[in-house]
Amino acid sequence: MSFQPYRSPSTGRPVRAVLFDTFGTVVDWRTGVAQEVAAFAAAHGHTLDAGAFADRWRALYQPAMEAIRTGERGFTKLDTLHRENLDEALRHFGIDPDQVSSGILAELNKSWHRLPAWPDSVEGLASIRRHYIVGPLSNGNTSLLLDMARNAGLPWDVIIGSDMTRTYKPLPEAYLRTAEFLDLEPGEVMLAAAHNSDLHAARETGLATAFIARPTEHGPGQTADLAPEGDWDLAASSITELARGLVQQLQS
Amino acid sequence: MSFQPYRSPSTGRPVRAVLFDTFGTVVDWRTGVAQEVAAFAAAHGHTLDAGAFADRWRALYQPAMEAIRTGERGFTKLDTLHRENLDEALRHFGIDPDQVSSGILAELNKSWHRLPAWPDSVEGLASIRRHYIVGPLSNGNTSLLLDMARNAGLPWDVIIGSDMTRTYKPLPEAYLRTAEFLDLEPGEVMLAAAHNSDLHAARETGLATAFIARPTEHGPGQTADLAPEGDWDLAASSITELARGLVQQLQS
Repeated sequence: MSFQPYRSPSTGRPVRAVLFDTFGTVVDWRTGVAQEVAAFAAAHGHTLDAGAFADRWRALYQPAMEAIRTGERGFTKLDTLHRENLDEALRHFGIDPDQVSSGILAELNKSWHRLPAWPDSVEGLASIRRHYIVGPLSNGNTSLLLDMARNAGLPWDVIIGSDMTRTYKPLPEAYLRTAEFLDLEPGEVMLAAAHNSDLHAARETGLATAFIARPTEHGPGQTADLAPEGDWDLAASSITELARGLVQQLQS
Repeated sequence: MSFQPYRSPSTGRPVRAVLFDTFGTVVDWRTGVAQEVAAFAAAHGHTLDAGAFADRWRALYQPAMEAIRTGERGFTKLDTLHRENLDEALRHFGIDPDQVSSGILAELNKSWHRLPAWPDSVEGLASIRRHYIVGPLSNGNTSLLLDMARNAGLPWDVIIGSDMTRTYKPLPEAYLRTAEFLDLEPGEVMLAAAHNSDLHAARETGLATAFIARPTEHGPGQTADLAPEGDWDLAASSITELARGLVQQLQS
């Protein structure tokens, strides 16, 4: 028996590295952020819907990166954008951030470094890692992704943060520079993501693609990204299921 | 009992990340390269001293990087420098590289991706990792360091290759940009290395320092770097011994 790497029908290449979108695909940002927001609110006597606060904070994520993608603003790492967006989210909920100590806000901002993995993530990544390079392909900066990995036990081989590619998905350079650091052709890299838009951009730049369904990423009322919306190479309901699709044993 | 991180006397800061020089400190480049050179020579009917070939190949390493450090040449990754130096080493041993297929030379060049760990490295890194971030701080490029880690089982948390900092040690930026990716102050990062010159440069930029003795890195007749030549924070004869020095339990 010899191991045959999965060959992507769309790229025609054997996959060498399986890289993962993180927020939503590997970790449950809404639950993790809401828990820390609820603790912050309780400690400071604020009454708020912590899930709604997490949604609001997250809603400011794409607009903040967009200013950088368009070149309107120089590259700024995600920790800084999250911190700015926290001020705006607090104001939206009637809390004046200037009345809260900067140390407490810095700690709350680090909730993005401590997000819990989905139940299948650690086992699925460990399975895939036996045969493929595994890493994040995330808009998170290196120190955020590193803290997240140590906290959640994510067994990455390598972490290439957006502060290393100095760009944000879905710009093509985010995918291409990551493949270049790995010394791989784009077609030898697979992006696994819970977001169809991310997979569209990855395919445009020549990567292999896998959809992972995360139907409660946005809470119980989620309406988008419930199913694959493209003919992605693979589609699975968990990272453990993706692992089974990637591991094919052929008689040698 | 609570864990107290090691506090560097020279920086006055608790250490958060312990980063390692790799070639010589974590892996035995001379043995690894010589083995692959010997196999190449045997397969192609050449008679040569494989250890001397490894020494010659390695001797071209610093001069090749120096052209980049001075700005004479733009940043070029170590895989490319190794490949150029291989041609020169072959010629030195009377072998015309143009008479060897490029595929075979590319494979021989990858011997640097497959270097064996010193016997204490994997266990020592795993111990240190329980309490500190561990990673390489090497002139190797990311894909080289990643392959080395997968082959030798080095349990890095993060790999920041020289193609990410786009400079070579001992220039200050090599150390400082690495600390910046980790979002740490230089004094919270410790460099562990078998080379006093590397530790001198690290201390100049404000890092904590640890010497690891590797008295056979250059073979049985080694004369340099047999002992610490500075008042480095720690000195050890193995990474397992360094781990013991870094793990101090204090009554809380």
